[in-house]
Amino acid sequence: MPASEMAGIIQKAEILLEALPYIRAFQGKSVVIKYGGAAMEQGPLKEHFARDVLLLRLVGIRPVIVHGGGPQIGALMKRLGKEPEFVGGMRVTDAETVEIVEMVLVGKINKEIVALINLHGGRAVGLSGKDGNLIRARKRMHRGPDGTLVDIGLVGEVEAIEPEVLALLEDNGLIPVLAPVGVGAGGETYNINADLVAGEVAAALRAEKLVHLTDVKGIAGEDGALISTLTRQEAERLIEAGVIEGGMLPKVESALRALRGGAAKAHIIDGRVPHALLLEIFTREGIGTEIVL
Amino acid sequence: MPASEMAGIIQKAEILLEALPYIRAFQGKSVVIKYGGAAMEQGPLKEHFARDVLLLRLVGIRPVIVHGGGPQIGALMKRLGKEPEFVGGMRVTDAETVEIVEMVLVGKINKEIVALINLHGGRAVGLSGKDGNLIRARKRMHRGPDGTLVDIGLVGEVEAIEPEVLALLEDNGLIPVLAPVGVGAGGETYNINADLVAGEVAAALRAEKLVHLTDVKGIAGEDGALISTLTRQEAERLIEAGVIEGGMLPKVESALRALRGGAAKAHIIDGRVPHALLLEIFTREGIGTEIVL
Amino acid sequence: MPASEMAGIIQKAEILLEALPYIRAFQGKSVVIKYGGAAMEQGPLKEHFARDVLLLRLVGIRPVIVHGGGPQIGALMKRLGKEPEFVGGMRVTDAETVEIVEMVLVGKINKEIVALINLHGGRAVGLSGKDGNLIRARKRMHRGPDGTLVDIGLVGEVEAIEPEVLALLEDNGLIPVLAPVGVGAGGETYNINADLVAGEVAAALRAEKLVHLTDVKGIAGEDGALISTLTRQEAERLIEAGVIEGGMLPKVESALRALRGGAAKAHIIDGRVPHALLLEIFTREGIGTEIVL
Amino acid sequence: MPASEMAGIIQKAEILLEALPYIRAFQGKSVVIKYGGAAMEQGPLKEHFARDVLLLRLVGIRPVIVHGGGPQIGALMKRLGKEPEFVGGMRVTDAETVEIVEMVLVGKINKEIVALINLHGGRAVGLSGKDGNLIRARKRMHRGPDGTLVDIGLVGEVEAIEPEVLALLEDNGLIPVLAPVGVGAGGETYNINADLVAGEVAAALRAEKLVHLTDVKGIAGEDGALISTLTRQEAERLIEAGVIEGGMLPKVESALRALRGGAAKAHIIDGRVPHALLLEIFTREGIGTEIVL
Amino acid sequence: MPASEMAGIIQKAEILLEALPYIRAFQGKSVVIKYGGAAMEQGPLKEHFARDVLLLRLVGIRPVIVHGGGPQIGALMKRLGKEPEFVGGMRVTDAETVEIVEMVLVGKINKEIVALINLHGGRAVGLSGKDGNLIRARKRMHRGPDGTLVDIGLVGEVEAIEPEVLALLEDNGLIPVLAPVGVGAGGETYNINADLVAGEVAAALRAEKLVHLTDVKGIAGEDGALISTLTRQEAERLIEAGVIEGGMLPKVESALRALRGGAAKAHIIDGRVPHALLLEIFTREGIGTEIVL
Amino acid sequence: MPASEMAGIIQKAEILLEALPYIRAFQGKSVVIKYGGAAMEQGPLKEHFARDVLLLRLVGIRPVIVHGGGPQIGALMKRLGKEPEFVGGMRVTDAETVEIVEMVLVGKINKEIVALINLHGGRAVGLSGKDGNLIRARKRMHRGPDGTLVDIGLVGEVEAIEPEVLALLEDNGLIPVLAPVGVGAGGETYNINADLVAGEVAAALRAEKLVHLTDVKGIAGEDGALISTLTRQEAERLIEAGVIEGGMLPKVESALRALRGGAAKAHIIDGRVPHALLLEIFTREGIGTEIVL
Repeated sequence: MPASEMAGIIQKAEILLEALPYIRAFQGKSVVIKYGGAAMEQGPLKEHFARDVLLLRLVGIRPVIVHGGGPQIGALMKRLGKEPEFVGGMRVTDAETVEIVEMVLVGKINKEIVALINLHGGRAVGLSGKDGNLIRARKRMHRGPDGTLVDIGLVGEVEAIEPEVLALLEDNGLIPVLAPVGVGAGGETYNINADLVAGEVAAALRAEKLVHLTDVKGIAGEDGALISTLTRQEAERLIEAGVIEGGMLPKVESALRALRGGAAKAHIIDGRVPHALLLEIFTREGIGTEIVL
Repeated sequence: MPASEMAGIIQKAEILLEALPYIRAFQGKSVVIKYGGAAMEQGPLKEHFARDVLLLRLVGIRPVIVHGGGPQIGALMKRLGKEPEFVGGMRVTDAETVEIVEMVLVGKINKEIVALINLHGGRAVGLSGKDGNLIRARKRMHRGPDGTLVDIGLVGEVEAIEPEVLALLEDNGLIPVLAPVGVGAGGETYNINADLVAGEVAAALRAEKLVHLTDVKGIAGEDGALISTLTRQEAERLIEAGVIEGGMLPKVESALRALRGGAAKAHIIDGRVPHALLLEIFTREGIGTEIVL
Repeated sequence: MPASEMAGIIQKAEILLEALPYIRAFQGKSVVIKYGGAAMEQGPLKEHFARDVLLLRLVGIRPVIVHGGGPQIGALMKRLGKEPEFVGGMRVTDAETVEIVEMVLVGKINKEIVALINLHGGRAVGLSGKDGNLIRARKRMHRGPDGTLVDIGLVGEVEAIEPEVLALLEDNGLIPVLAPVGVGAGGETYNINADLVAGEVAAALRAEKLVHLTDVKGIAGEDGALISTLTRQEAERLIEAGVIEGGMLPKVESALRALRGGAAKAHIIDGRVPHALLLEIFTREGIGTEIVL
Repeated sequence: MPASEMAGIIQKAEILLEALPYIRAFQGKSVVIKYGGAAMEQGPLKEHFARDVLLLRLVGIRPVIVHGGGPQIGALMKRLGKEPEFVGGMRVTDAETVEIVEMVLVGKINKEIVALINLHGGRAVGLSGKDGNLIRARKRMHRGPDGTLVDIGLVGEVEAIEPEVLALLEDNGLIPVLAPVGVGAGGETYNINADLVAGEVAAALRAEKLVHLTDVKGIAGEDGALISTLTRQEAERLIEAGVIEGGMLPKVESALRALRGGAAKAHIIDGRVPHALLLEIFTREGIGTEIVL
Repeated sequence: MPASEMAGIIQKAEILLEALPYIRAFQGKSVVIKYGGAAMEQGPLKEHFARDVLLLRLVGIRPVIVHGGGPQIGALMKRLGKEPEFVGGMRVTDAETVEIVEMVLVGKINKEIVALINLHGGRAVGLSGKDGNLIRARKRMHRGPDGTLVDIGLVGEVEAIEPEVLALLEDNGLIPVLAPVGVGAGGETYNINADLVAGEVAAALRAEKLVHLTDVKGIAGEDGALISTLTRQEAERLIEAGVIEGGMLPKVESALRALRGGAAKAHIIDGRVPHALLLEIFTREGIGTEIVL
Repeated sequence: MPASEMAGIIQKAEILLEALPYIRAFQGKSVVIKYGGAAMEQGPLKEHFARDVLLLRLVGIRPVIVHGGGPQIGALMKRLGKEPEFVGGMRVTDAETVEIVEMVLVGKINKEIVALINLHGGRAVGLSGKDGNLIRARKRMHRGPDGTLVDIGLVGEVEAIEPEVLALLEDNGLIPVLAPVGVGAGGETYNINADLVAGEVAAALRAEKLVHLTDVKGIAGEDGALISTLTRQEAERLIEAGVIEGGMLPKVESALRALRGGAAKAHIIDGRVPHALLLEIFTREGIGTEIVL
């Protein structure tokens, strides 16, 4: 073997060993991954994601996936002639809409993710919040700019997570994949923001990490530069100052909810980077923004 | 308490005790229930079904539910402008159709059943054949009347049942509810006849019973009269003679598959009778037709 | 099947389902049954009792039976020429008497109950308070009307229940049947009131229920009418007022002891009603009197 | 400490160590002891027996005791005016007699043994053959000298031992004490020879040893001298030759039954020797006669 | 058998039974034995020791052995031309010396003890303080008579005991034999006083007993007479008064450390007496001095 | 982050993922590593080895290390004035020599390896063949060139491996490090070839792999070129042809022994390559020679 080739394979070993302290630290712990954006939509990134999740599971870490499903819901609604209607960024959800949302999330996207992971050799099991009453939800009203509460239909918020089924699957080497649909006290269906569900699940499992896979590099500060580490207090201040806003808002709120509920760390990383998940967990390079207590 | 009232409540106790030998015989055994027809569509029958299943579970029997979903699939296809096409009674299933089938079965009907059972106090978990690779499937060709094979698209047949996830849920007091969607070697989705899935699952679990809830009284013989008990040989003869045909055919084939695979008994009962399931399992009155080895 | 017949069997199912919430509530919990009176002496009632107990066990409830044995003890004493002698309602018990008591309770009545239950398919195991030191006892003196203590021989009171053997049998699906004989610090035998033993056992097991099967309808109030529910305070008041007296007194004291020790509820029911036990536990009809904290 | 005293205590240690290979060989194994005769009737021998059994249990051996009860049964029958009647050495047993037998064996002798062991710190639990259907029995007819069968009433022989309850107690450090009363298919009581019960129990448990505590030195050969070791074949020959006869006959038959059923060794030892049981099991001195395959 | 012989063997049984209360009291508890002196050097005493330890283990007590190794270390050093050098009774330990110490303790003495016990049928496993980081150590300075600290090289003191490996071996019926070598934070080797290691191990295991096998009769008081029992306070006073000094000092300090750390009792006994260990644990005769809280 | 840097870290992830199929294949399996040569003697290679072993353990593979110790034994013998003497390549081993061998292997080299692994965060436990009778050995005679047997002293061969202690450590996440010293029937010490011990251990554990870390590139064929894969038959032929000889001979014999005994594969790899172990197990590049059935 030529020396240069040999040097290459030796470097391989060093990279494997870089993962060693992280494996040791995270074995037996849950990592909740909010899966969405490019990482969920582009072919090669999807493959990468499936293999990354599988490696986590194989080395004894317990990944739990929570996914969203924006564009595909809109597409089916359009085909069915339903006009989407939003109030304050939230979809107004009538009975027919919630049925469409549930079919797309649970019957399409969830199953695609499950099949993808299993095709790479994992053993994933898809769940909705109705399974084992995993996500107990209640109606969420929208508070308008003038402070009045507006009824936006079957949009829910998490009342309680019943994590027994998740723990049962994790304990047996399976990978839970969770669609953000909640069940009300009367059995009714609620559409819930997937970011917030991920935060609640991370809290209920006292996860080691909550990782949001997004389509941005992380959280930008007041000067527009990427912030590597953010404390809870700083994050709260940036929200108040309106620097954290728009689509980033529910992600950071989810992170804060997770930390307050007992999760150790939260990360907002760039899902457009191949293997962003693996790099975040197993290498010393910082990816995106981490939020800590 | 007046004597007549007392007599009434004493009779209650006798009915409870009638269940005693059946509970003893079936404890710890799986009962696979093919759920469909009126029992799945009419309000009060649905409530009855949920409570029946729950009682089975509470006394230590392990119910596993397999459901179908005919009419609702057609309704959504129609709304989406897809013209249903059938060959030899089987739906020709292109990629778009199988997606609709999966959304309706997994994202709608399955979740309704799960929520229904949980609302009555059970702990049901919905599964598709993709979860944990539960139903491994392969393409099924239709053999036309002239013996030629016709490609009817993504219609599948069961290649193997991987029952680990079912057993895990059963062992932990949960009630699995299974949608008849299979996964191919390349991760592709297959639409499979629910009756046949139920038979395969009953075989894989070596179930105590496979129970088909139907909209008829049972199997009628050559003279049109209801048959109480049918041996495997007799069933095979009635199929050959064309007496068992149409919608009853897959149910009886499913029963025979279950028996050959190790299930103890199969039943075809009238789901229009309130609590038909409970009566079949816990009382001495015969309901419908039983098929035995 | 004629419609009327069908209506009959459907009603059966409703009765089975009426038991559902009770099974759910009581599974895994102990129910201590003080067995005596008509239910222990009349043929058909004995059969009913055995089947009732067996059904409890089959659906996952843990019955524990404590029995007495009055008339049969007297009969053997008479044949042996011993003149029964009572002081304040308690049998004066010399060494020979306690030996007769033990032989009848442990060697005759206990074994009849065990054989009866096993004959119906249960797995009962008889125990005396000596087995595994289950009932540690000490001498009980009788306080005469003038306040002086009278020695009435080998009559005992419970010093401590060592419930390990009971729990071992319950955990393994067996039905313990306990004779009210205690063992003193020096290995000596004590005759103890069976009602009081039942109360102590219910407390030690933190039983869900203590049920006294008696030959009356329940507790009558000052106006002679049956009382359905009695709080601890009311029961204490009725004892003080002398309304509860005679043979009912030790039963109510046993109930109060059980409640104070951690049992959830106590019942005094009419053992002359067929299946009184089952009806009390599995139906909504009230039987007799319940005493609660 | 004077040298002589020191020598004495050092010898103590050597005696303790003599037990070492026997403890190692017998740990976790069952030793079935037929308890009767002087060892059961004389004060100090009873104390010795209790401590011997306790030491066995403490070092990890599993003692199971089977007792008889001859003289005390006769005494009670006499007091009750029943004239004992024997045919071929077996007690003719009518319904009243079997009731007396059961009361004395189960309600008196069994409990005395249990209390004795517990008083010395053990945890004994008394059982009759009815408990957990431990001894299933059937009617035994007496074959008279002319070959005709004579009905001698409720005398039974063992049909099957159901050892689950014994094993449950042994596994949990408890010492089972078993009275030789069997239960028939209809729940009826049978009086069975205790020697034969011990042999059947030793076979069912595949015991390491069956030990008969008797009132003789062991088995005497044709020359009247004590035989140390006897093979199965020799024992059978001595029976045929009439050398083994009378009360020794059932003991040797019990030993042969145990050996044929899987027990490793049987012993007939002199219960009049203090600690005969311990010496047999833990020292190299031979006591009595051993019977081997 | 002549009566005198019989009397002899009966006495044997009584001696066995004398051990009964001690076995009961100590089962499942750890006994840490500091092994050294004559008991480790003289042939027959070594055999006795091995059998004593084995008997402890067989009856369910958990022996843990800590050994020293003085003379053999000096012998090898001499052969290798190293001049021993002592400061205040402690060996000045340079890198070469600690290597010799480790080779002799771990590679010679430890293995001799392991082989000795295994030859008698035990299952011993030798350990050094490096195995599983069992003895974490740090450098110990010597405080000279004038109070200045003197560097005596690689002499260590216990920083922490990590008892997981010991417990794992004990739980599985194995006998740990521990050499007093510690490991520093950088992986360096420390020579530690074996007496002190034994005390720390007894504390970490919350041992029932710490037993020092020595070459003296026990602790002598101010009048030179053997003290049977010593409280912690008295022991501290005797140390301060200089009555306990020299080689006895680390033994008593070890005992006090064990007691403070949760051990129940400590003993200093005469290892020159055959079976001193067994006699101390299983008989009522006092051997040497016991130190109690 | 610049694109080139990003490309670098993404490549990292791909390397991590390359390990995925190997982790999946080898989880829960034992890998026996014969450790020696440069990898055991040179500073950086030792560090690499420790981290490699640790990573194996962390991802659920069970490494077992067997080491030798040639040069250090000779050095100590020389210092002690013992002249090494070899017959047919094997050290003539008198009593003094075997003592030196044991001290160096068990008391020095073994402990260095244990401390090295633990320093990097593992939990290693060192063992000799005496611990738990792990390596039962018997005397091995040397067969001279003329076929006569020559006594070369305390040189042994493996009679039996008792793997219970190894399995206990492996099951509990510990890393066994084994010195090649065997114990004879009489407790005597035997010096055994470490290569052969490794082969026997791999067989006893039915290891997934036996890996020899050597100072050559692998096995060279008749043409001097490195052979990548060798079947058992080819290896046997090369031995017979004298192509495999010298120090390679016991390594190949060890490999054949392992394969015949149930190990899946054996490897002879170049320990001078950094991380050779990790590369062999986790990457697709072939290192050295593999021998297969």
